[in-house]
Amino acid sequence: EHIPYSHTRYPEKDMVKRSREFYELLNMRRSVRFISNEQVPKDVIDNVIRAAGLSLLVGSLAVLSTVGAETLKAETIGQLFSEISFTPSRTNWVKEYLDTAPVLILIFKQVHGFAANGKKKVHYYNEISVSISCGILLAALQNAGLVTVTTTPLNCGPRLRVLLGRPSNEKLLMLLPVGYPSKEATVPDLKRKPLEQIMVTV
Amino acid sequence: EHIPYSHTRYPEKDMVKRSREFYELLNMRRSVRFISNEQVPKDVIDNVIRAAGLSLLVGSLAVLSTVGAETLKAETIGQLFSEISFTPSRTNWVKEYLDTAPVLILIFKQVHGFAANGKKKVHYYNEISVSISCGILLAALQNAGLVTVTTTPLNCGPRLRVLLGRPSNEKLLMLLPVGYPSKEATVPDLKRKPLEQIMVTV
Ligand SMILES: Cc1cc2nc3c(=O)[nH]c(=O)nc-3n(C[C@H](O)[C@H](O)[C@H](O)COP(=O)(O)O)c2cc1C
Ligand SMILES: Cc1cc2nc3c(=O)[nH]c(=O)nc-3n(C[C@H](O)[C@H](O)[C@H](O)COP(=O)(O)O)c2cc1C
Repeated sequence: EHIPYSHTRYPEKDMVKRSREFYELLNMRRSVRFISNEQVPKDVIDNVIRAAGLSLLVGSLAVLSTVGAETLKAETIGQLFSEISFTPSRTNWVKEYLDTAPVLILIFKQVHGFAANGKKKVHYYNEISVSISCGILLAALQNAGLVTVTTTPLNCGPRLRVLLGRPSNEKLLMLLPVGYPSKEATVPDLKRKPLEQIMVTV
Repeated sequence: EHIPYSHTRYPEKDMVKRSREFYELLNMRRSVRFISNEQVPKDVIDNVIRAAGLSLLVGSLAVLSTVGAETLKAETIGQLFSEISFTPSRTNWVKEYLDTAPVLILIFKQVHGFAANGKKKVHYYNEISVSISCGILLAALQNAGLVTVTTTPLNCGPRLRVLLGRPSNEKLLMLLPVGYPSKEATVPDLKRKPLEQIMVTV
């Protein structure tokens, strides 16, 4: 039941370099709300989903892609999206990206599972666990040169779930429009909190 | 208030390659519960924390390091840790890593903030948001060649918070022991869910 763990150990110099480069990569990440309608390579989306899926114990991902799915997206879901409301504090963001983004990733949490005998099985910390996968998804997208914005649609989760044929133990947690940034994309001029404000070392 | 977003776009071939390599890197990640007491380079920990901190809007990180802090860890916190209980389903894991790991990262969520006038300010989705940062932390650690296991200490959050001097609007969410795997480290022989089981494409 237990197997040896196989580990890749890098020389110290490489560890420092890799960790610095990863920091620099993520330091360029921003939530982008202006997404071009240009198609993105399918292989890239597949790999990004695979990377996030590895840690997805108690959730699922729905990938809506306009590649070959224009009809569903434009007609059925488009209607629904026009009714979406988002996080209370951020309702005034333009939601144009829902129409333009070539790919939408919907992340569901599984609030419970089923034991072999059909009984409900509690999924401890399902929301935390699925959110962790979302963090890995954000890193994977940034690494591939794609942009997104994490959004939390408040009201149309149940209808999207049914529309996508997901089972009733799943709840929509997040919706990520994915693509290239549009040419004139802007971002809020926010400053990150300085490290001293978020970190204490003991 | 809004500034142009500066984007790095890679050629398609590079995007595919980068996304595949990122997947392969994360495919090697496992939760490791056997951690060596060998010291890890401080610069690597700093970079990993920085990377995760970038997306940490409503949380904080406490880094307990035995580098120069043996006394606090061994005496004060060691006692506390001996009383920790974890996720209900997983209480029987050996918790030796709490004593051996050279670095412990404690992740706090800020359940609310304070407005300029001193009034409480709700932090929407603080748990999701901080968990996303934890996902980025896991990716950063894996990228640097370090191991960890995400744990959720149930009972001693309040005492650890006070001990670490964190304010009362913070709650301990996760605890990650970090280091190199010990020589005989094993992992459960679990199979990842196949992609079809976690993903639907529309
Ligand atoms: C859990 C969570 C929910 C969010 N929900 C929304 C949303 O509904 N609408 C939106 O425009 N942005 C949303 N955001 C994005 C944040 O506004 C954004 O992350 C924040 O402004 C920081 O900017 P950055 O990602 O560029 O660092 C959300 C972020 C998180 C972590
Ligand atoms: C939110 C969350 C809480 C967890 N809590 C614990 C814990 O308290 N103790 C533990 O040994 N493992 C804990 N784990 C680790 C899981 O057991 C582990 O991720 C799972 O077995 C999958 O293995 P992997 O990470 O190697 O893919 C937790 C994982 C998550 C996502």
